[in-house]
Amino acid sequence: MLSQLLVLFAVAIIVYFKDVSPIGSAVGFSAIGYVVVDALIPRVSESFIKIGLFGKDMSKPGRPVIPETIGSISATVYLFIMFFSIPFMFYKYLVVTSGGGFRDVVKQEPAEELLFPHSKLSEFLSALLCLESTILLGAADDLFDLRWRHKFFLPAIAAIPLLVVYYVDFSVTHVLIPNFLQELIGTTKTSVDLGAFYYFYMGSVAIFCPNSINILAGVNGLEVGQSIVLGVIFLINDVLYLTLGVNGHARESHLFSALLIIPFLGVSLALFKWNRWPAKVFVGDTYCYFAGMVFAVVGILGHFSKTTLLFFLPQIFNFVYSAPQLFGLVPCPRHRLPKFNENDWLMYTSRADLKKEKPKRIVVVVLRLLHNLKLIDLEIDPKTNEVLSCSNMTLINLMIVWFGPMREDKLCYSILALQFFIGVSAICLRHLIGSLLFGNDNLWRVV
Amino acid sequence: MLSQLLVLFAVAIIVYFKDVSPIGSAVGFSAIGYVVVDALIPRVSESFIKIGLFGKDMSKPGRPVIPETIGSISATVYLFIMFFSIPFMFYKYLVVTSGGGFRDVVKQEPAEELLFPHSKLSEFLSALLCLESTILLGAADDLFDLRWRHKFFLPAIAAIPLLVVYYVDFSVTHVLIPNFLQELIGTTKTSVDLGAFYYFYMGSVAIFCPNSINILAGVNGLEVGQSIVLGVIFLINDVLYLTLGVNGHARESHLFSALLIIPFLGVSLALFKWNRWPAKVFVGDTYCYFAGMVFAVVGILGHFSKTTLLFFLPQIFNFVYSAPQLFGLVPCPRHRLPKFNENDWLMYTSRADLKKEKPKRIVVVVLRLLHNLKLIDLEIDPKTNEVLSCSNMTLINLMIVWFGPMREDKLCYSILALQFFIGVSAICLRHLIGSLLFGNDNLWRVV
Repeated sequence: MLSQLLVLFAVAIIVYFKDVSPIGSAVGFSAIGYVVVDALIPRVSESFIKIGLFGKDMSKPGRPVIPETIGSISATVYLFIMFFSIPFMFYKYLVVTSGGGFRDVVKQEPAEELLFPHSKLSEFLSALLCLESTILLGAADDLFDLRWRHKFFLPAIAAIPLLVVYYVDFSVTHVLIPNFLQELIGTTKTSVDLGAFYYFYMGSVAIFCPNSINILAGVNGLEVGQSIVLGVIFLINDVLYLTLGVNGHARESHLFSALLIIPFLGVSLALFKWNRWPAKVFVGDTYCYFAGMVFAVVGILGHFSKTTLLFFLPQIFNFVYSAPQLFGLVPCPRHRLPKFNENDWLMYTSRADLKKEKPKRIVVVVLRLLHNLKLIDLEIDPKTNEVLSCSNMTLINLMIVWFGPMREDKLCYSILALQFFIGVSAICLRHLIGSLLFGNDNLWRVV
Repeated sequence: MLSQLLVLFAVAIIVYFKDVSPIGSAVGFSAIGYVVVDALIPRVSESFIKIGLFGKDMSKPGRPVIPETIGSISATVYLFIMFFSIPFMFYKYLVVTSGGGFRDVVKQEPAEELLFPHSKLSEFLSALLCLESTILLGAADDLFDLRWRHKFFLPAIAAIPLLVVYYVDFSVTHVLIPNFLQELIGTTKTSVDLGAFYYFYMGSVAIFCPNSINILAGVNGLEVGQSIVLGVIFLINDVLYLTLGVNGHARESHLFSALLIIPFLGVSLALFKWNRWPAKVFVGDTYCYFAGMVFAVVGILGHFSKTTLLFFLPQIFNFVYSAPQLFGLVPCPRHRLPKFNENDWLMYTSRADLKKEKPKRIVVVVLRLLHNLKLIDLEIDPKTNEVLSCSNMTLINLMIVWFGPMREDKLCYSILALQFFIGVSAICLRHLIGSLLFGNDNLWRVV
């Protein structure tokens, strides 16, 4: 009943706003996406389990079996919502031909403010192609359980349509040089052309965003939760540009960003409802890749990939913090999820055994330093002063080191709150530092 | 070794032809597609069996288990080949901007004959989106074994991006009125605007083509084989337009068609190598949907959907011929594949029992008529003159009725030969009848 009302409301918004702004229809489609995903998940869960797509929830008594890869529902619904929203985005720009098989343009309605220029259609379609490829390859990963070294590069393959259309349609490979660097190297040029390296850089962004979301995982609701928080942060930044901004190009980019992210929030919130503690479904790799790719696409096509990386600070921190274990400097157990205690329902740090497999002495010195800085928890033999074990090096375990054992839901929400705080700070910093580094900021200045 | 040479040759073609014609690079990418699919199939087959994607070959002694859904490899490789070929298709039209984040066009090289106009990029991307959606939904079907009534409409859902972009970008919903009809209804109008019905019609084409290929199946190599024959027939028609044609619009449409179909032939031939008798892999629904959709897309975007349906005559015949069983007028056993005889390795007609479940008397009269016309084989009790059974109503069984029991490979190739003969006749007829019906034919006249 509530969902039917929501759909009615959504349709009303879409119809009402179709002449006004595509943002309106994006909100409407987002609501429809929420309702559809929320209705589909309980209906398809059984079929997923039946074909072997399920996992055990290690942080519950009895380790219940729940369906896995359910995030692919959100991703697929998102795609089809976006297909339907194309006419509304380009509503004012519909091309009318003289008919009879001729393809000449007879009438093209005038461009209006805050509407999407028709020339952007191919850019938009390439974004959808990239996201659909991500879903396809993500599904292959979820089905065939690909090896780590193959998985890692999947997003780069999925990004090919994006980069190719960028090359054909757009080909901007300049980056601005910060003022201080201009003085340092004694140049008067304000930008440098990276050429082919720019494509390499965009490919790296496309690899980083999806994988970093996939790595910061292991607690009910965290994969979707962090994606929603990221979406909200991106949206706040977009709204800043759309309301205060004076630079036409930047506004266009951030309109594009908002139009992709608003429906993303709809399908993700529905998934969160089912994936939050106590989880009834798992999201799977497909969703993590898809979510990360939404942000990569927005950053790349909107030309604000540096800002995008700034918003990924918690994920970057998690990756850097994990690196010593990932690269084998510190022993790395197979699973690094925090440990569930059945008696008090709290999550405790999981630990790596440093006694069996001793790290190099220099590593131990660094670990002791980190321990003193409260950035890791070491178990030290009081007699011999020998290091016995350390907490696993993930942001999730670090939260427990800082704030003590918590229930799984509280752990998830603390991480999300920290992430939101960092994101909002990043927005403030970005526009402050942007002005300092480049002499101006594209939020306030026209160029 | 041979495949490495082929790749080298393909790269040479792509590089050489990049300034001349996109057809050249399509041929090169087609060769690369062949090599990649041919190399991937044996490498991934085991993984497909491991996750439950396998089937039994009913027409071999011992019913060996072989991997299923392998056609999804061809389909996915096709997509990525097409992504890479975008810059070569639009090579002469690459847009150069002034850089520094500005999106203004500084230089656009002049259009040349036989090259793809840049304005077609969004059309091309929507075709790829439609095909990728087909693969995604086809994979869902192969994985979850959807119900018949759901499967049937999947292609229409996959066609949404195509129809939406058609609406936004193109919106031609006129069809020409044949001369005799103009006189019959006394109008001077040469075309009629179907409006929304035209989208319904295009959706129907998108549903028909994939499903009709999926239905004409059951013999090793037949799904891929008929797709290859269809591809060749389409290509012959395209080449006619590109060499003899004088109508610019029609040439453009058929260039588009050729660019989609040439790489399709590459990935399909590699699949055929593994799927032909004795099959080492099955193709699965994904490939049938994908192949059918390639032709639907080409027909819809090229504005020759009526010709497309003409080329599907054998599939249409198979569907109409099957209808009495599909709609329950004649009893329909679960499987209608021809029956394999282990002793002589020949395929015999499979039969529907008409004794247990008696059809209506009028149906029996029609069946007897068909029997006399050699369009079905009836088993009649010589004493009571009662009809005991009939051969199942598929084109495959009909071939056996006509030409007697054959080995599976001969059966497949006879059907393909018949299909090719019908297709070539259809091309001749189409340009003859087209001239008669519409007073002119777009192959010969500029219109």
